[in-house]
Amino acid sequence: MEKNRLEAFSDGVLAIIITIMVLEMKVPHGDDWATLRQLLPVFLSYVLSFLYVGIYWNNHHHMLHAVKHVSGGVLWANLHLLFWLSLFPFVTGWMGENHFSATPTALYGVVLLMAALSYWILAHTLVAGEGRDSLLAKALGKDLKGNMSVLIYAVAIALAFVNQWLAQACYLAVALMWLVPDRRIEKVLAERQKNQA
Amino acid sequence: MEKNRLEAFSDGVLAIIITIMVLEMKVPHGDDWATLRQLLPVFLSYVLSFLYVGIYWNNHHHMLHAVKHVSGGVLWANLHLLFWLSLFPFVTGWMGENHFSATPTALYGVVLLMAALSYWILAHTLVAGEGRDSLLAKALGKDLKGNMSVLIYAVAIALAFVNQWLAQACYLAVALMWLVPDRRIEKVLAERQKNQA
Amino acid sequence: MEKNRLEAFSDGVLAIIITIMVLEMKVPHGDDWATLRQLLPVFLSYVLSFLYVGIYWNNHHHMLHAVKHVSGGVLWANLHLLFWLSLFPFVTGWMGENHFSATPTALYGVVLLMAALSYWILAHTLVAGEGRDSLLAKALGKDLKGNMSVLIYAVAIALAFVNQWLAQACYLAVALMWLVPDRRIEKVLAERQKNQA
Amino acid sequence: MEKNRLEAFSDGVLAIIITIMVLEMKVPHGDDWATLRQLLPVFLSYVLSFLYVGIYWNNHHHMLHAVKHVSGGVLWANLHLLFWLSLFPFVTGWMGENHFSATPTALYGVVLLMAALSYWILAHTLVAGEGRDSLLAKALGKDLKGNMSVLIYAVAIALAFVNQWLAQACYLAVALMWLVPDRRIEKVLAERQKNQA
Repeated sequence: MEKNRLEAFSDGVLAIIITIMVLEMKVPHGDDWATLRQLLPVFLSYVLSFLYVGIYWNNHHHMLHAVKHVSGGVLWANLHLLFWLSLFPFVTGWMGENHFSATPTALYGVVLLMAALSYWILAHTLVAGEGRDSLLAKALGKDLKGNMSVLIYAVAIALAFVNQWLAQACYLAVALMWLVPDRRIEKVLAERQKNQA
Repeated sequence: MEKNRLEAFSDGVLAIIITIMVLEMKVPHGDDWATLRQLLPVFLSYVLSFLYVGIYWNNHHHMLHAVKHVSGGVLWANLHLLFWLSLFPFVTGWMGENHFSATPTALYGVVLLMAALSYWILAHTLVAGEGRDSLLAKALGKDLKGNMSVLIYAVAIALAFVNQWLAQACYLAVALMWLVPDRRIEKVLAERQKNQA
Repeated sequence: MEKNRLEAFSDGVLAIIITIMVLEMKVPHGDDWATLRQLLPVFLSYVLSFLYVGIYWNNHHHMLHAVKHVSGGVLWANLHLLFWLSLFPFVTGWMGENHFSATPTALYGVVLLMAALSYWILAHTLVAGEGRDSLLAKALGKDLKGNMSVLIYAVAIALAFVNQWLAQACYLAVALMWLVPDRRIEKVLAERQKNQA
Repeated sequence: MEKNRLEAFSDGVLAIIITIMVLEMKVPHGDDWATLRQLLPVFLSYVLSFLYVGIYWNNHHHMLHAVKHVSGGVLWANLHLLFWLSLFPFVTGWMGENHFSATPTALYGVVLLMAALSYWILAHTLVAGEGRDSLLAKALGKDLKGNMSVLIYAVAIALAFVNQWLAQACYLAVALMWLVPDRRIEKVLAERQKNQA
């Protein structure tokens, strides 16, 4: 039951984050396509962030599915992740309004990086509770994708000051890499069910 | 349990969308009926969108009720639907503030069209997982209503530039057509229960 | 399960309504008590509306607790109630910003009246589904409190144009009358448990 | 089941409060670090309030975990707590925008104090329902931490007018004191399980 309420609260926060981001796309004065076209950068930054929050929800969903116990430490590691994700509406709006200029692009990367690190902390707090031989530990494995993401974010933050479009390409590449849901956990779950049968 | 969390997240997002739309109806300066009357177009566009989000929640609710398994593909098809629905507050506000002028009316239709297409994708992803002989496949059947809606939205988008009130009449007609909840699924569910008895 | 999702969606919408109302209390410029005092009417209207949404959540909670089946008609009757409740942030903000002047006070009463009527419709749709001898039908009984509320709201709307403070007194009186949770349902539930034992 | 819906509603409200607070951090004009630095006080006040709402969620979660029955009085005591917590976005925004000046710092303390008192009322309403020998009564014990918090808030409110940074230090100290989740309840729960085994 403990786990259910953690999931419910996280779902609530993620649902709100993903939805209030759209409020940064302010209803413009003027009713023609030209007016609308000026909102294109804000819209594109919204799409990117929607993808990212969707990815986090998806992976969070899969990871907790494989978890049995939730300790006090997990509650705080989870809140820590939600804190960084809660900054998405702000950095998304700032990046969109400034047409992906250098500093907002770099700050967006910083929030992505911190969210990835806090996800890593949450995963390891969960593994510590479940044990090294647990389903979750096996499912997470070496976490190549997670480590690569952190590396790419760090490179992208530096790149933002050289050419911000290279940084944006990095953010998009990582998002596409994660768009495929985390098969590792599904695979291990399926194997276990086969072994039990 | 997987399904429960998908439903909970979707409920959260839909609940937020339906509620923050009202924030586009800004509290006006002035305290008389004349001031209030100026808000009438914004209010009417809110009512129309409330109807639509209500319809989506209702049908989503019914469709998932008939589903047993939820795959990774379903999670993304569902997020794709939520993305288009999340644009409702923006297009509703834009249409209301511009008193249903041509371009905002057309854009509203585009979002309705994309939401309908993404609902279609979600339905077919679910059927692919459940099997062609499943309860859901039978319940959805030929989906005449869904196909007609898409057609009417497409016509309405074009009509918006001829006379926007014709387009609005189309949107309202489709909403009223859907107001009746999807009896197909209730019928098939009822039949199955009879057969089992 | 159907009922659970209806409750979850309603809880979500009510939780958002009760929370976004506070956004109408805009952070003021200036940092002294005088600045804050200007916000007093907005704060008081927030307190009144918080009470009302709390009462609706409480009674909704109790009513659905006694319900077994949820039909398509119930889903729409429930959405209809949520529609009127979703107008609370707007009318609360309008009334607060205009220091409880006549027209906003009357409009507030109109929304209260419509919410009460839609609650009545929901209750009767539920009773129609449960049967006249059902637990719910007995628990609702003659619904004296509900009928009185509707009457007082109607009187208050007219009074608003004579003296708005009389109208406000009516709104407050009804809220205090409902603050006591609906014991009728608790009583009938308790009796049934006694009979079963 | 009653308890579940109380938890779900509270989770919803807390999730919204914690997320809309970030909306007070308005996207600034200008895209450089200097612009961003001006937002630092707003950001810091957001971090402090995020911590506090997280603590309340955590403790609320633990307290209700040990509860079996939920009465009408509990529903209102819970709403009373949510009311004070719903003022967090306002006082956080006011404090941040005024760079932690005296009056907003004091008002922040008043809301902290009222939230702590309403939590105390909720805890005692729950204990009254569960009985003095209940798991919850033992788990809460003498509630030293809770009493100390109330005392420190009261001192901090007065200190705000001497030196607001002393008040802020108090708020931070109490937050850090609570960051450790309430082990009392976990301990008593663990003991009971041991005794049952």
